[in-house]
Amino acid sequence: MQVDMDGRGPRHAQLARALRTAILGGRLRAGARLPATRNMASQLNLSRNTVLSAYEQLRVEGYLRARVGSGTYVADVAAAKPRRQSPLATEPPTRYAARARSVDFRPFKRGGEGIRWDMQVGEPMTDPALFTAWRRALARAALYADPRYPDATGLPALREALCDYLGRRRGVDAEPADVVVVSGTQQAIGLTARVLLEEGDAAGVEEPPYFGIRAALWAHGARLIPLVTDTAGLITDRLPKRAPRIICVTPANQFPSGVVMSLPRRQALLRYASANRCWIVEDDYDSEFRYDSEPLPALRSIDRDDRVIYVGTFSKTLFPALRLGYLVVPRALRRDFGAAKRIHDFGTPVIEQAAMAQFIADGSFERHIRKASATLRARRELMLEGLRAHAGEHVEVSGSHAGMHLAVWLRGFDQDRCQALVDVARAKGLALYPIAPHYLAAPRRAGLLLGYAGLSVRELEAAMQVLGECIRETAPRVTRPTQSPGPESGGSRGRGASAPRRL
Amino acid sequence: MQVDMDGRGPRHAQLARALRTAILGGRLRAGARLPATRNMASQLNLSRNTVLSAYEQLRVEGYLRARVGSGTYVADVAAAKPRRQSPLATEPPTRYAARARSVDFRPFKRGGEGIRWDMQVGEPMTDPALFTAWRRALARAALYADPRYPDATGLPALREALCDYLGRRRGVDAEPADVVVVSGTQQAIGLTARVLLEEGDAAGVEEPPYFGIRAALWAHGARLIPLVTDTAGLITDRLPKRAPRIICVTPANQFPSGVVMSLPRRQALLRYASANRCWIVEDDYDSEFRYDSEPLPALRSIDRDDRVIYVGTFSKTLFPALRLGYLVVPRALRRDFGAAKRIHDFGTPVIEQAAMAQFIADGSFERHIRKASATLRARRELMLEGLRAHAGEHVEVSGSHAGMHLAVWLRGFDQDRCQALVDVARAKGLALYPIAPHYLAAPRRAGLLLGYAGLSVRELEAAMQVLGECIRETAPRVTRPTQSPGPESGGSRGRGASAPRRL
Repeated sequence: MQVDMDGRGPRHAQLARALRTAILGGRLRAGARLPATRNMASQLNLSRNTVLSAYEQLRVEGYLRARVGSGTYVADVAAAKPRRQSPLATEPPTRYAARARSVDFRPFKRGGEGIRWDMQVGEPMTDPALFTAWRRALARAALYADPRYPDATGLPALREALCDYLGRRRGVDAEPADVVVVSGTQQAIGLTARVLLEEGDAAGVEEPPYFGIRAALWAHGARLIPLVTDTAGLITDRLPKRAPRIICVTPANQFPSGVVMSLPRRQALLRYASANRCWIVEDDYDSEFRYDSEPLPALRSIDRDDRVIYVGTFSKTLFPALRLGYLVVPRALRRDFGAAKRIHDFGTPVIEQAAMAQFIADGSFERHIRKASATLRARRELMLEGLRAHAGEHVEVSGSHAGMHLAVWLRGFDQDRCQALVDVARAKGLALYPIAPHYLAAPRRAGLLLGYAGLSVRELEAAMQVLGECIRETAPRVTRPTQSPGPESGGSRGRGASAPRRL
Repeated sequence: MQVDMDGRGPRHAQLARALRTAILGGRLRAGARLPATRNMASQLNLSRNTVLSAYEQLRVEGYLRARVGSGTYVADVAAAKPRRQSPLATEPPTRYAARARSVDFRPFKRGGEGIRWDMQVGEPMTDPALFTAWRRALARAALYADPRYPDATGLPALREALCDYLGRRRGVDAEPADVVVVSGTQQAIGLTARVLLEEGDAAGVEEPPYFGIRAALWAHGARLIPLVTDTAGLITDRLPKRAPRIICVTPANQFPSGVVMSLPRRQALLRYASANRCWIVEDDYDSEFRYDSEPLPALRSIDRDDRVIYVGTFSKTLFPALRLGYLVVPRALRRDFGAAKRIHDFGTPVIEQAAMAQFIADGSFERHIRKASATLRARRELMLEGLRAHAGEHVEVSGSHAGMHLAVWLRGFDQDRCQALVDVARAKGLALYPIAPHYLAAPRRAGLLLGYAGLSVRELEAAMQVLGECIRETAPRVTRPTQSPGPESGGSRGRGASAPRRL
């Protein structure tokens, strides 16, 4: 008989694999008698033990039967068809899958090939000192962390450290039982949707909303209700008569516009939530970075009726690859969030939680924030200066008091012209991102979202100069409100005198 | 005016907090004029800069208004009611929340206070060498891991290492694009439910099923269809005429009974799935530990029609606190699982993924498995020997060829007597866990699930001796099938001659 051994791994495993394949392929049929181990061994030039071991393995697996005193036979195994490549494209198997497919993350991806300056939001600051400190914290935590299944709602030490931190820095009065440690804002919203929303329930989001929240709610099957915002945040006078089940807000730094929700609006929103018994989700993603004052206390700090689900993350303060965040939930929802987190994934990785608990408790976290704040402030000032110097007459900046990005509105640009600007800049190695894809309904003004955390002062200097060039190249000759070009002029060539050139 | 400073943190923050509280509490009313900074400073014995800084902070937050040349006034802030403690118990807000509340994890918790020997399944092996190696891998990974948002489906290096490993050890032929890295089996099932099941859809589970899978499917709203098993695993002749959308199986080591699904049944199950276009979820949780042969190839290795969703985890091979696992999904579902994972949490923590990729690639993982296998085999043999020696006539063991636990059936015990045994043992410091809570319908036989990974040889020796004592103490005098005691005799006192004593 012919046996094809593939030469990978130990010989007994090779032989077992070869025989298995022959049986499944139908070349060795059910009932066939195999050569005695001694014969097989000499035939294949193997030791008899190798053959014995392969036969025994296949007997355990059910491919062979041994009859005492009579030899080894192929068991009653059906020959299998050759493997079929299943198709890549099929109908979505559920409504969830259909909705998940329809989420388009492309406008929020990084720039990719040939990009020297990437202005995407959500890029972390590179800070070698942070990584050294974090590495030390991790290695220490790995020494003493409990290897067993964790407390699903989070390591007690981390929940305590968070309560202490939130009390001091965000005015949030929480006890450890209110806290659920999660793997970032995205999971926090997923849990919120699971616990609070049936398919088809209404969820209010700021217009424009943060795309991660929007995607999670949409995929869950929520009906998204856009809530208008202005320069003081959510316009509470225009909240719907019929309240949605939840309202998601970013009071400290509206994403992406960068405005801060005013105190009267905050109070009005809380009154609305109490009166209508709906829940507020406060996404406090980068409030730690505030440049004209101390960070503003969280909405939850003035929430008297326990209607606010507070969401915090380490993606901005440290880095997104961590996938670590937390919820502070109303007492009435503690049990449900705890159960949902347990059922979701039995809890968040323990070593990283232990490292973070220590990182907060020993002051490393706040030291890092202070340092990062200073760095970000310098970059922000440089950006603002660069924009003024290189494109002052064409731009208007919002959201410059906090966070890690600027919203830059382009005077006299419509969306087509904004796209032309993006194309021209890309050809020069500068990745720009329009604000428009963040909106549920197309916005009237055109603008860019400029993340500045991922670039050094030197890089930002160059980037602002290139941005200025590109804006001047693509701007309408005379700055008038919305000098609408035809759709043809919105292509990648721009309309300036000099053709785009690669740097 | 009276200002109560609480002494926590910097003085300007204390003053701001005190004024904020006074305004929200209604003691400082809208329109009231604050003392000039100089007066306030001398009144409170603070520096003028401290007062200036507090006033400015409250102006930014919206609590104060400054009128040029006229002073500082309390803004139009509504006094807030005192904080209300919201009730702990409320109606579940959604069907999901109601179902999640109804999941009872208590039978699957650890023993707790006063327990010297805990036989709960899922306890990790304590192996100091593993932690040292893991700590080193983590620290190294923290050095070079990319801090940005990860690839949601998993770090490419880890997906490649997994494909290589699965090919060699589990016979699974996968490419990196088939793999989705997740935070453990629990999340894998949660994603599967999201992608494949509408509320009310049927999901087949082995009877008894693994409780984590059962909880995830149940909370999602699946209709659970119990599928009977025997000593060759799932009885494929008795699969329902109308196929469920998914069928969850543990072919390598049925949880909790410990039986292996036979080859003909595996083939029959795959034919059934192909014919009915349903999906098989293969939970391969601890197949790496097999003691009478090499690990058996996975069901997915003979899946010709690409119907198997393979689920692997590091909770058993390394330790559960990691929260790391992976899926190998059919081509037709790649896109949907990828989208669902992205929407769920934007991906799994990167440093741990990078560490694991290296751990597998440099051979540490398989070295650890070989070592752990030898350790577990020794413990298993000791357990079997101890059971034979101390309670041989009363027990029958299944599932002794693989994994990290034994299913031990108690001859002549009914469920009440089994509970009495548990109670007697607990009083002696031995935590035992009946099999019954794992079943969807009450099983006919009584038995225990004995996890042996968490205890040393020495501890197991003592534990088996105590177990023997307790069994002899609670067993019916003459071993007959189900000599049913009255409900009164099922209490915590047992019925042996010696009263339970604390060790």
